[in-house]
Amino acid sequence: MKKISLLGATGSIGKQTLDIIKAHPEQFKLSALAFGSNMESGIKAIEDFSPKFVSVKDKETYDELKSLFGHKSITFSYGIDGLIEAATYDEADILVNAVIGSVGLLPTMKAIESKKTIALANKETLVTAGHLVTEHAKKHGVSLLPVDSEHSAIFQCLQGENEKSLTKIILTASGGSFRDKTRSELIDVTVEDALKHPNWSMGAKITIDSATMMNKGLEVIEAFWLFNMPYEKIEVLLHKESIIHSMVEFHDRSVIAQLGSPDMRVPIQYALTYPERYPFPHSKQLNLWEIGTLHFEKMDLERYRCLKFAYESGKIGGTMPTVLNAANEEAVAAFLHGKIKFLQIEDLIEQALTQHDVINQPTLETIQEIDHSTRAFVQSLI
Amino acid sequence: MKKISLLGATGSIGKQTLDIIKAHPEQFKLSALAFGSNMESGIKAIEDFSPKFVSVKDKETYDELKSLFGHKSITFSYGIDGLIEAATYDEADILVNAVIGSVGLLPTMKAIESKKTIALANKETLVTAGHLVTEHAKKHGVSLLPVDSEHSAIFQCLQGENEKSLTKIILTASGGSFRDKTRSELIDVTVEDALKHPNWSMGAKITIDSATMMNKGLEVIEAFWLFNMPYEKIEVLLHKESIIHSMVEFHDRSVIAQLGSPDMRVPIQYALTYPERYPFPHSKQLNLWEIGTLHFEKMDLERYRCLKFAYESGKIGGTMPTVLNAANEEAVAAFLHGKIKFLQIEDLIEQALTQHDVINQPTLETIQEIDHSTRAFVQSLI
Repeated sequence: MKKISLLGATGSIGKQTLDIIKAHPEQFKLSALAFGSNMESGIKAIEDFSPKFVSVKDKETYDELKSLFGHKSITFSYGIDGLIEAATYDEADILVNAVIGSVGLLPTMKAIESKKTIALANKETLVTAGHLVTEHAKKHGVSLLPVDSEHSAIFQCLQGENEKSLTKIILTASGGSFRDKTRSELIDVTVEDALKHPNWSMGAKITIDSATMMNKGLEVIEAFWLFNMPYEKIEVLLHKESIIHSMVEFHDRSVIAQLGSPDMRVPIQYALTYPERYPFPHSKQLNLWEIGTLHFEKMDLERYRCLKFAYESGKIGGTMPTVLNAANEEAVAAFLHGKIKFLQIEDLIEQALTQHDVINQPTLETIQEIDHSTRAFVQSLI
Repeated sequence: MKKISLLGATGSIGKQTLDIIKAHPEQFKLSALAFGSNMESGIKAIEDFSPKFVSVKDKETYDELKSLFGHKSITFSYGIDGLIEAATYDEADILVNAVIGSVGLLPTMKAIESKKTIALANKETLVTAGHLVTEHAKKHGVSLLPVDSEHSAIFQCLQGENEKSLTKIILTASGGSFRDKTRSELIDVTVEDALKHPNWSMGAKITIDSATMMNKGLEVIEAFWLFNMPYEKIEVLLHKESIIHSMVEFHDRSVIAQLGSPDMRVPIQYALTYPERYPFPHSKQLNLWEIGTLHFEKMDLERYRCLKFAYESGKIGGTMPTVLNAANEEAVAAFLHGKIKFLQIEDLIEQALTQHDVINQPTLETIQEIDHSTRAFVQSLI
């Protein structure tokens, strides 16, 4: 039986992870969980899965939970320390890191030191500090398993293959909620419009990132670190049906792809069962004759400026992706709170990148400082 | 360096195998070859590759070659004995069996006894005597590597996977030269029309088999034997672009596919380099944005009766697939010689299947007898 610590248990990925644990009660046990302040979902998760350790965002939520579950043998904690305690919880074998944003970095680093297998749904961790996380994982002999559907697809396609034969990674992109709009049509789009993703049911931040194509940009950087591929060999392909989740090309021109109905539970489960596959009949079987047609288009980096920023930041390296990510997180939050317009997300990111003097091979402390100062800079512009 | 014996060297697969050997002179050496009576291509192959052993179809061709190359240290032979000698040639590590039709069976069996790795382009071998060939390979610890693009695709998709997780094989079918015609439009089609395959450049027999969909039927039976899958779990999907070469579905609903520009040299090379991949820059790189759209349709077994016959014969088993294959070979030859009309191919096969009383677990001798008597039966109807 694999024992799991889950960070971000009440988010979209977190809830779907709980579905997977529930589907395989003989194979999985939830040992520890962390969530923010969504009490309703958090309480349900505690009742359904009886974890031994629970951490939440703040003291207030912590006190409330203590009063509710104080009679049970559950250890409670809160804040970043609680998040790290959950990530490194002794009994757990696997950490599923499904928190949103660069707050996921420190718990991942500590869990690596505790020799946990890392199922990484928190792509910002690799974007903001890819060199530290991958070096740390290598040093401690820990596996970093992707949860993102695209990276899981690539990882699945690489099984049984020699990575030396790999010539290209092809990430597919649905295009997000505004894929059929021109740039001038984007000027007055609303938060509500942006949150309507055509294929995937996901959290708010990632849905906005999909609309700006920053999500694909973060994934490009994530792929760079996970698969050790130069940016020139990471291609993004518009594929509006999201049926081919990503592809790899080998030097004999053979291309291997992973496909499926859009359902995040499949890549989540794969990360938890790897190298095995468990049955998962709850997911819809893919019948391509039902879908009939798959479309592909070349990606336009002028239409999707955030993707261009991501490639540029990734190639520069050092602290530049940290700035990209922090600026994006702040700008998206501001958009979601109605403080800025949709296209200002790109403008704010561009300004943050332009003002930054890159630092190479940054330490964890430097990254945290730059993350902080970038957020302050973006806030000052809003 | 891998040493190769190639049967069917002047056919389409044979010539493309020679391209691959030529592309990797440090890795491959052609030790033995066999061809029919295409002297021009045969002589060129001997001159280009200097094999040590050459076999041809008949005494006449043999005599002619002896007079041309008698001064060189090449051993010549002919007929079925020569074919077997080539297949079992001592120096060779791999047999590429690219002859057409059930004549490929005996050389394959003998090469298995000689412990050669078998790269099998001769699908009729598995159709006509799948149980004997697979048992024999198992007994002698010999690998049967697929060369057909569909089976190579499946084989590639299965690398690194546990076959116990496999729930479905999905063979793609282009639909052949008449895919846009109704059955009534097929009544008066010509040999010339039938030979115009939309995607693949192949030999005459397989191109007609593609037009009747019998090629896919033979592939279904081939997949049954190569991958040990029940017929209920082998699906055929119409996909007119031939870009996805085939797919596999696992019990977690994940589907893995192999894609590429249609180029038989890629699967041929994979069989020769397996488990490695060698570079092959001569093949066109796949760019899905150039192609734009991929189409998929459900297969109609009433439109394509040969495919229905193949499923039925395969499920009955025993000598039934032997009859299917022998009747098809004779009917296609008759069509190519202008002796029958296109739709009569199906009718002849149906009559041969109807008149046959199946024999279960046939020996090699029984299969050869049934092959013979089926051909005579079909001939008697023409």
